[in-house]
Parts: sequence; C-alpha cells; structure tokens
Amino acid sequence: MSDATSLSFGEGRGEALYIIKIGGNVIDNSEKLQKFLKAFADLKGNKILVHGGGKMATKLAAEMNIEAEMIDGRRITDIETLRIVTMVYAGLISKNLVAQLQMFGCNALGLSGADGNLISAKKRPIQKLTSKIDGTIKEIDFGFVGDLDENSIGTVNLAKLIDNGFIPVFSAITHDGESQLLNTNADTVASVLAVAMAKTYETSLVYCFEKKGVLVDVDDDDSVIREINPVKYEDLKVKGIVADGMLPKLHNAFDAIKKGVSAVYIGKADDLEDLGAGLEFGTKLVR
Amino acid sequence: MSDATSLSFGEGRGEALYIIKIGGNVIDNSEKLQKFLKAFADLKGNKILVHGGGKMATKLAAEMNIEAEMIDGRRITDIETLRIVTMVYAGLISKNLVAQLQMFGCNALGLSGADGNLISAKKRPIQKLTSKIDGTIKEIDFGFVGDLDENSIGTVNLAKLIDNGFIPVFSAITHDGESQLLNTNADTVASVLAVAMAKTYETSLVYCFEKKGVLVDVDDDDSVIREINPVKYEDLKVKGIVADGMLPKLHNAFDAIKKGVSAVYIGKADDLEDLGAGLEFGTKLVR
Repeated sequence: MSDATSLSFGEGRGEALYIIKIGGNVIDNSEKLQKFLKAFADLKGNKILVHGGGKMATKLAAEMNIEAEMIDGRRITDIETLRIVTMVYAGLISKNLVAQLQMFGCNALGLSGADGNLISAKKRPIQKLTSKIDGTIKEIDFGFVGDLDENSIGTVNLAKLIDNGFIPVFSAITHDGESQLLNTNADTVASVLAVAMAKTYETSLVYCFEKKGVLVDVDDDDSVIREINPVKYEDLKVKGIVADGMLPKLHNAFDAIKKGVSAVYIGKADDLEDLGAGLEFGTKLVR
Repeated sequence: MSDATSLSFGEGRGEALYIIKIGGNVIDNSEKLQKFLKAFADLKGNKILVHGGGKMATKLAAEMNIEAEMIDGRRITDIETLRIVTMVYAGLISKNLVAQLQMFGCNALGLSGADGNLISAKKRPIQKLTSKIDGTIKEIDFGFVGDLDENSIGTVNLAKLIDNGFIPVFSAITHDGESQLLNTNADTVASVLAVAMAKTYETSLVYCFEKKGVLVDVDDDDSVIREINPVKYEDLKVKGIVADGMLPKLHNAFDAIKKGVSAVYIGKADDLEDLGAGLEFGTKLVR
C-alpha cells in the first residue's frame, strides 16, 4: 500500500465520496428505481453510481432469438452477448438513469469504462477449472469478460469529473485500451473504484441489495446488525449467522476496507434516504 | 446577437474548436471509420465528434422484428424505435467509437444530450402538414423526436469537459429535462453545438459526407470548389451548380456562420488528415 497511498490526485483530498451500487432488483422496478434515484440525487456531496443490468439484456436477447452461451454450466460473454450488454447497460439503462437523475437536478454523466479511459480491464485468460458437470479439469474461455486490478481506474480523470461537479454513473462495460469493450462484474467495478478513490477521498462503498442489511434472522427484516468490524465478523461466521451468499459479499467488503475504504454499507435501495439524512442505513462494515 | 455574445464561459475563450460530424457512410464501414478516427485523434486542439447512426439501428429493428412506423410517408420515432436508437446510437456505436479513440490516445467521452444536461430538446409538437399521399392537410405526431433551439446547449458544462482535456463524442440522443429521451437529427446537433460554442471558442464546423466537397461537376471528385462565401453561394445557386440535396446543407451552413461560427467545411471523412495537416480540406464556407 505504501506506493499506492503516496499517489494523490484531484482537488478533493479528504472530502467524502459515496460509491453506490444498485443491481437488477432496483433497475427492473420503475417505482423502486425512481425512489432510489430521488434519494441518490438528494444525497449531499461527491458520489458515484454503479449499476448492474437486470433482466433487460436477457429480454433483448430473447427478442433477438439469441441464446445465452453456456460452457460447462458457466455463462460465456460471446460477441453477440457483448453487443447486447453494451446496448442495454451502456446505452438504454445508462441514458435512462441519467435522464431521470437530471430531472431530479443531479448532474449525472453516464459512462462506461472506455469513456475517459476511466476503467480499463484485461480480458480474462482461458482458465483451467474443475468441470461442474463431470468433475474433470477443463479449459474455459469466458469470452469478452474483463477483469480489473489495482491499476484499472483512471483516478486523475475521474477526480477531474467529480471536482467539476459531475456525478459519474457507471455501467460495468469496460475496455482493454486496444479498442475491445469487455463485460465486467458490477460489484467488482464498485469495489475497485472505491479502493482506487480512497487514496484521495474519504470513500464509503454502498451495496444495495434485496435485504435491509445483514440479518440475525434472514426472515426478519428488523433484525439488522447495525455495525460489524472484523472481530465481530469472525464471531458471526463461527456462529453461522453469516453464511452462504453473504460470505463472499462480506469478505470482499472487508478486503476493500483493508485497502483503504472508510466504510462499506450493505442495505436496501429503498432506505437510501436514511443514509442522506444521517440515520442508520443497513449494516455498516468498519475497520 | 448582442445578448448572446455577452455571455461567455469556460477558460477556452478565443481558442479554436472543431466540431466534426460523421454519418452512416463512415460508421458502417470499419476501414473508413478507423482511418477517420485516427485522423480525428491526431487533430490538434479542442474538438467534438458528433455521430449519426448508420444502418445498425435498422438491422437491430429487423432482428427484433420491429417495423419502422411510417405515418403518411413520414418516419415516426415511436417508443420501440426510441428504445432501439438509444441502444444503438448512445450504447453500441458511442462506446465502440470511444474505445477506438482511446486506443489512438484520444481522451474521448461518449455522451448523449442527457449526460451533464449538455443538449436539451423539446418534443416536436403535432404538426399540420400537407399529406405526401393525398395532398390534404394532416396532423402528424412524429413521436419521440427532439427539436433544438438556441438555449439547448449546456455550454458551461461542455466547456468544463473540454477545458479538462476530454473529447466529447455525441450521439444525437437528447432529453427534455423531464426524464424523457428524444431522438434528434445529428446534423442539427452539430450545427446547434457549433453556434452555441462559438460564443467562447473560435469554432469550425466540419460535415463529413460522401463527396470530396461541393463539386462543380457532381461526377468529378476533382472539381471541388475550395471556398464559398455568401456572394459566391448566390451565384452558384443561380447557375444551378448548387442544387437538390446540397441546397439545405449550404443554407444551414451559412446560417451557422451568420450566427457566429467561423467556418463550415464540407468534405470527405477520408480526407480529414488534410485538415489536421493544414492542407485544403473539402469546401470551406466563410463569411
């Protein structure tokens, strides 16, 4: 980290920055989406929105009679799929989000990773993986999938946009710098952005998902655990309270915190206005 | 003009700015496109690219079995067509142009008019027009078509992007400020941008089309008229050398010049490198 933290940029040193990620469950529900976007627009200070795709890409593929390519039970981004996600994520969803945010007075800019060279990725190499079907080792080419690393973010250009009052809205379409667009995981885009921007801003990463936060009882939305630090995290794992799908989410969140992000929130998009109002929002993960 | 010229903005006062428009004939030909983008990337100084659509939107509509809606012989932008052009122009084409420009070291940002509220439009009202079919007066609703006026351009935000070294790449998708995206004519986007930016920058507008310029003999690409001023324009009209499709092009170009644009070039995308090299490029329209 010593090399990384010695690099600083932009005029926003020490200012707060929220990086908020929404997924398909918000994108696909126009009522939820509008409520979320209003709360996002009202949130004071520096902020970045990262959005996933939702069902629209699948719907378009069906309309075009294009079937999702699967190899050994794994989804592949072939050239047709890349074309579809570029149209839907970086076009249809991005521009409609921006038009709605502009209505709410939020000066949004809809961006892919190619724009301003803000997020560059490397095409995932062919990987040797254990077959999900017969357990043998197989070579899998995931196609036009982009993986990120600690140098992926064009932090100087991104800080210029933020410092000039623009609100970046990112789809998870990235590029390799050699003119190839790539499809990247939106959760990963959000966390890599947060880690990179934490060198200059006091960065909080906010994941919006279906639940109100990390719950003691998964069936009780009122059982949100308000704050988790690494010690409590270990305890929750041992007790089996954090399990299954929450494990990788929290693992990645604590990894981002270890790399400089101030806090990671996991909560419901519906409740974002609470964050803006300084109230408790979801589960806050801290150092 | 006195009110308009008294408004100034940005740090680029008096600096040169090129606004270059390409259409389908370049977009649809990958070899021509790459050559053009290299020349655009190499062009020194401030610049903006405006792109049309080409055949990709028609191709996608066919793949989706969506027929272009025509009313009384006129093309209508219904909600499905708007969805398609948003995906194709603001998504697929925009992001691929940007990824190629980034490869050439050009710090492009792919934008719609909604982004940064850079181009706002008004939905075209229902118009009473003479029927193309039976000559009667009919009411035509063009659908989600956006018309521009002299207040459409977010000049302050656009100047911030340019002054920070970003190269805006515009699709002709605009918005109405009330969250509605609109489909706008790309030639009009280019000229309205040029007129608005001419208040601050010494702006040249460049239209790339199929021919090498305004030709004395339409069949002879070597018969380019190198410079036309309003007096010569009248003369060319009287002599019938400028006729048909060239008439509205030149009319609009001289209108832009009257409103402050320094020069309008009409030439071939293939030759753009000549403009960068300070050589003669196409036909130059001047005051």
